[in-house]
Amino acid sequence: MLSIRPAIAADVPSLKEFIDRMAAFERLPVTITADDLLLDGFGDRPQFAVFVAECDGVLAGYALYHASYSSFQGRAIFLEDLFVSPSFRGRRVARALLAAVAAVATQQACFGIVLNVLGWNDRGLEFFTKAGATVLEGWKTLTITGDALHSASAGR
Amino acid sequence: MLSIRPAIAADVPSLKEFIDRMAAFERLPVTITADDLLLDGFGDRPQFAVFVAECDGVLAGYALYHASYSSFQGRAIFLEDLFVSPSFRGRRVARALLAAVAAVATQQACFGIVLNVLGWNDRGLEFFTKAGATVLEGWKTLTITGDALHSASAGR
Repeated sequence: MLSIRPAIAADVPSLKEFIDRMAAFERLPVTITADDLLLDGFGDRPQFAVFVAECDGVLAGYALYHASYSSFQGRAIFLEDLFVSPSFRGRRVARALLAAVAAVATQQACFGIVLNVLGWNDRGLEFFTKAGATVLEGWKTLTITGDALHSASAGR
Repeated sequence: MLSIRPAIAADVPSLKEFIDRMAAFERLPVTITADDLLLDGFGDRPQFAVFVAECDGVLAGYALYHASYSSFQGRAIFLEDLFVSPSFRGRRVARALLAAVAAVATQQACFGIVLNVLGWNDRGLEFFTKAGATVLEGWKTLTITGDALHSASAGR
């Protein structure tokens, strides 16, 4: 049986494993630690929230999201990750996780969910477009990190 | 003289005007109202924060940002808008606004600033890459809104 529930602090070790697997799939490095996740997600001032999916009591996947804001449209939810363990695919786990996040978005009077998907992730793109997502064309995502961030803060 | 300060509730009418001009430049619709901005930015639970730039006491531009979170890298600032009124360009206003946001990012132990820029916005891309930004290649941004959001929340 499939159930969806908010993650609790005791889920952090499993969540970190899932995140590592998500990052391996996306071929991206992970610098976050389990302690970061515990502090930032389950401390006094949560920076994100997580739903986990359980199939017959076994963790099958997660959705990690946080508040976002569009100056043109208002409140939104940013869906950072939606991951289902390969052995649990085909059981509508992803759809159930997305439903939980979408319910939060509607409860919080958000105009919608925003997310990024890698262009080569055909399965991901297919899942979200089947769920009614619109691909925004023409945007580039930029980051300012490390030395560039420190230079920018000094106004250089 | 150029100065940067956090926006206050009394700036909302000017902020809304700036947002409308930013949206006109980006050729995107605006559904947000001044009341939304007042409630969401200057109420009990702010969803975003704004710096405004003043040149000799006249508002010259704004930067609107909010917290973000990467499950791989941790805390971040999402820079939603950075806008300088055309008549104030060439005075390093944008750089000063970016410095203020970058200072918040370093104070809050963020790994960086994340932002989206329209691909045809050569001036914007040039400004941010000169400021040390990296363009992330290969990502698509998706949104789930309106009827799709309601269907998704029902698990359809």
